[in-house]
Amino acid sequence: MKTLKMTIRYDGSEFKGWQRQSQECSVQGTIEQTLKALLKEEIAIHGAGRTDAGVHSLNGQTASFQLNTNIGADQLKYALNRALPASIHIGEILEVPDTFHARYSAVGKTYQYIIDQSPEANPLRAKYVHHLDKPLDIEAIEEAMSYFVGTHDFQTFMASGSKIENTVRTIHSFELKRQGDEFVFTISGDGFLYNMIRIIMGTLIQVGYHKTMPNQIEAIIRSRCREKARHTAPANGLYLMKVHY
Amino acid sequence: MKTLKMTIRYDGSEFKGWQRQSQECSVQGTIEQTLKALLKEEIAIHGAGRTDAGVHSLNGQTASFQLNTNIGADQLKYALNRALPASIHIGEILEVPDTFHARYSAVGKTYQYIIDQSPEANPLRAKYVHHLDKPLDIEAIEEAMSYFVGTHDFQTFMASGSKIENTVRTIHSFELKRQGDEFVFTISGDGFLYNMIRIIMGTLIQVGYHKTMPNQIEAIIRSRCREKARHTAPANGLYLMKVHY
Repeated sequence: MKTLKMTIRYDGSEFKGWQRQSQECSVQGTIEQTLKALLKEEIAIHGAGRTDAGVHSLNGQTASFQLNTNIGADQLKYALNRALPASIHIGEILEVPDTFHARYSAVGKTYQYIIDQSPEANPLRAKYVHHLDKPLDIEAIEEAMSYFVGTHDFQTFMASGSKIENTVRTIHSFELKRQGDEFVFTISGDGFLYNMIRIIMGTLIQVGYHKTMPNQIEAIIRSRCREKARHTAPANGLYLMKVHY
Repeated sequence: MKTLKMTIRYDGSEFKGWQRQSQECSVQGTIEQTLKALLKEEIAIHGAGRTDAGVHSLNGQTASFQLNTNIGADQLKYALNRALPASIHIGEILEVPDTFHARYSAVGKTYQYIIDQSPEANPLRAKYVHHLDKPLDIEAIEEAMSYFVGTHDFQTFMASGSKIENTVRTIHSFELKRQGDEFVFTISGDGFLYNMIRIIMGTLIQVGYHKTMPNQIEAIIRSRCREKARHTAPANGLYLMKVHY
């Protein structure tokens, strides 16, 4: 038996999220079924992040699994990519020590969020960006972003119903780049709570529309109260870019 | 009553093509239903090109229609874009003379076709490019492209079953630009037969893989025989870019 690690790209708009579900089409379920069809072996894969419906992965999602079949990593990658739907692509497969687990071995993750400020929506980008035609105050957003960097208790920014006990996380960097009319936010941290990035983005959009002042962010974080950050930006603008080990 | 002209962008992967059909979801049908819901008036819209399922429009598709309701063009555009699904966006609406007809007044069209030569497929582009990982001989393709420009009988490149009698068309220009791993073909002409661009692209791919020699293209065109060009490239790489009036 050997342990393998693979990176996966997918179009989140085609799936009900990463996690295997009984009836719904998931990324994990699709890959597991394809592995079973190819290798005649029941294989459970463990993903580093359980991305929601609509959230994309661009080389980001990483999964580990154990295999009895004797097949080379390159050969398995080739066979998987031929058998998988076009909405999923395996980037690389590597043999790793048996102690490796995609989720528990991860030390950090990088996500991107794209806001499209084109005056006219582009229907071909509808599933891949969050379109807002009304201009945002980008300077205010950049000021607000700085308050998120560092180690904080992010309970304010966790979807209600989540049962995680330790809600302290460290955000290592949070950057914004403009590409034409698209604003690409890149956030790296040691981990993110459920919906945390989408709630942070929802809050930043409120800042960009002057519903919240940048200097209120510190107090909103400190409040540890979900009601202070009620806006969750839609999933379609979010990309898992990299899992760090 | 006034006559209006509008340009439409859409994500072709979300529709069974432009043309209204009884049960299937079409771009034309979706816009007509939305107009009816907004204006309480039965309106038939006439598109310049009947794009197939999967074919996209980027500002390209143009439609004309007649309206009794007294509403400004800008106001109608705003209301339509609010009511339409994100997969369709109205670019502009203009009042035009009553003699204008999007299809019969058109004097030419420009399409693009995108081939992605990335070694690894990008699942987020799967519905928007034709991915071929095996490298094409681009020089041979460029040589072959030159034979298509000009006025020819393009019967070889018309989908069988089509009943058009005059199969002579003029291609004004046919250009290729590289953008990273993507090869963007831009073709302009006075009109195109059913599936003509997809069959031309299918033939060029054969040239790129040395199954057909560039200098055979003249004879293939002259043959007026569909069997000489049996390959039809998939719809997902094709974009209607502009209708010329």
